[in-house]
Amino acid sequence: MIVVVCLNPALDVTHHVTTVNWAGVNRPTAVRARPGGKGVNVARTLRAIGADLLLTGLAGGVTGAGIEAALGRLGVPTALTPIEAETRRTFTVVDGGGAVTAFNEAGPEVTEREFAEFRGQYDKALAGASVVVLSGSLPQGLAAGAYATLIEMAAAAGVPAVLDTHGEALLRGAAAGPAIVKPNLEELASLAGRRLSTADGPDLTAVTAAADQLRNAGAQAVVASMGSAGLLAVTGDSRWLARPAAVTGNATGAGDAVVAALAHGLVLGRPWDERVRHAAALGSATVAAPVAGEFSDDDYASALSAVAVHQEEVG
Amino acid sequence: MIVVVCLNPALDVTHHVTTVNWAGVNRPTAVRARPGGKGVNVARTLRAIGADLLLTGLAGGVTGAGIEAALGRLGVPTALTPIEAETRRTFTVVDGGGAVTAFNEAGPEVTEREFAEFRGQYDKALAGASVVVLSGSLPQGLAAGAYATLIEMAAAAGVPAVLDTHGEALLRGAAAGPAIVKPNLEELASLAGRRLSTADGPDLTAVTAAADQLRNAGAQAVVASMGSAGLLAVTGDSRWLARPAAVTGNATGAGDAVVAALAHGLVLGRPWDERVRHAAALGSATVAAPVAGEFSDDDYASALSAVAVHQEEVG
Repeated sequence: MIVVVCLNPALDVTHHVTTVNWAGVNRPTAVRARPGGKGVNVARTLRAIGADLLLTGLAGGVTGAGIEAALGRLGVPTALTPIEAETRRTFTVVDGGGAVTAFNEAGPEVTEREFAEFRGQYDKALAGASVVVLSGSLPQGLAAGAYATLIEMAAAAGVPAVLDTHGEALLRGAAAGPAIVKPNLEELASLAGRRLSTADGPDLTAVTAAADQLRNAGAQAVVASMGSAGLLAVTGDSRWLARPAAVTGNATGAGDAVVAALAHGLVLGRPWDERVRHAAALGSATVAAPVAGEFSDDDYASALSAVAVHQEEVG
Repeated sequence: MIVVVCLNPALDVTHHVTTVNWAGVNRPTAVRARPGGKGVNVARTLRAIGADLLLTGLAGGVTGAGIEAALGRLGVPTALTPIEAETRRTFTVVDGGGAVTAFNEAGPEVTEREFAEFRGQYDKALAGASVVVLSGSLPQGLAAGAYATLIEMAAAAGVPAVLDTHGEALLRGAAAGPAIVKPNLEELASLAGRRLSTADGPDLTAVTAAADQLRNAGAQAVVASMGSAGLLAVTGDSRWLARPAAVTGNATGAGDAVVAALAHGLVLGRPWDERVRHAAALGSATVAAPVAGEFSDDDYASALSAVAVHQEEVG
């Protein structure tokens, strides 16, 4: 079983309006509401590829209850720890002319006691886990070392961890020795304090150097997601580049699909070339799908055969 | 026990934003979400005045689950029938300059089978009911006679009904013989096909004539809510006018408070003068409260002593 941790889920609501009346009452022609947040996206992708999973995390208030109900309906098994504060919503208005306005709530403040309660539930879930995925930003109230604590608990239970976050939480998490961390180029560049791309695309030498910083901090492997340039996995003895075929679409959720595939690859014991091939293909199929964060099996299958995987020994 | 029927509840979400960026991402400084819809408002008011109640109705999807959770937290007992479609949200953006933009979802389409399931639950609730309140608009999919059906079921169980709706549903409902219908001036005017106010305020002769139309249709009593002019109750043998003291504030939810007080008055067996006195006072206290649909006990108490009740025999 893959245990997915989502400490800061969201309900993503989108209203489609023909022409927005900014000074009156609008009646949306279409409404879409779905559970979101990076951990939730990972869980939904794992569910879509048939992996055995449990989504853990924190849920509060009206929105938390709603998210839990929606995940149940989507067939995603959950064990969310209740919190006092209200889980966040994102509210997006899309008008017929293509204008997009977003209202993103700040999200809940989590108490020390609530995080302790979560750790108790998480510890129980670890007993049946083969991999743990920790994904997304930390909610207010939690220290930057929260993911590090959870990775250490997983290690104590013999469970490898996949971490996808940014900034201080990523650095501190890497130090706890996760099996894989998956930053994107922007997150890596921010840690490295320098640009990692040129006009021609990612500078692989610079990306590798930045990934090595995270490996030196403690991460066993670093998989950098580089958008349409694919994935670069730095595993210590090797460096793997997986390039998908060119695809146009919506990149939202593609990084989460990559994380899901990497975790699944760990569970299945896939070698690195197959791990990055599947991860790049699933990311690419997600970009191609009309709805952010979803993919079609056909796109996944054809992306899989189109990915070019290239290995270099690292001296 | 007062059984409140809310067939079309809503989750009312309000985002406060300093200055709205209509072309980007906004981070609200304050967020408010509460269960709404006229029946829900009546239930909350009944709960606040200490009445024994059960809220019945229809709830679907993420929003339905959220509303149910929130009502539980507010201490409002619910027995909501699940429906397939998503319960509606209203989303309001209030900016620092006072501009208000609303996005009101259309609400669910209810199936014949779901309404039949609701009637089964409602019939069970009637066994313990002393009054039934039917309040608000009908969701899509339900015939205009839906309230009439529910009033007939209540009558068969010996339970008097209070009805607050508009248009065809009000006319059909009145024909089923409810104890009280409570239209506002606008709803009455729309039924009567003529204006019922002059520049000086409501024309009480015209309001009485319009109320008599509803009494002739079958309603036992009509209580017209006339905003700051108070209430006019037309009961057949008498006409009661209850005028509250002048108050400024937000009239949202005041009509629902009037309905709650009328239902409570029925349960308590209050005479008409006390019914309208309490109803006008509770409506007035609700207008005075800073938050729409709420009231303070102090405001209620002082409004109660300030209401002027006047009776006229009707020849």
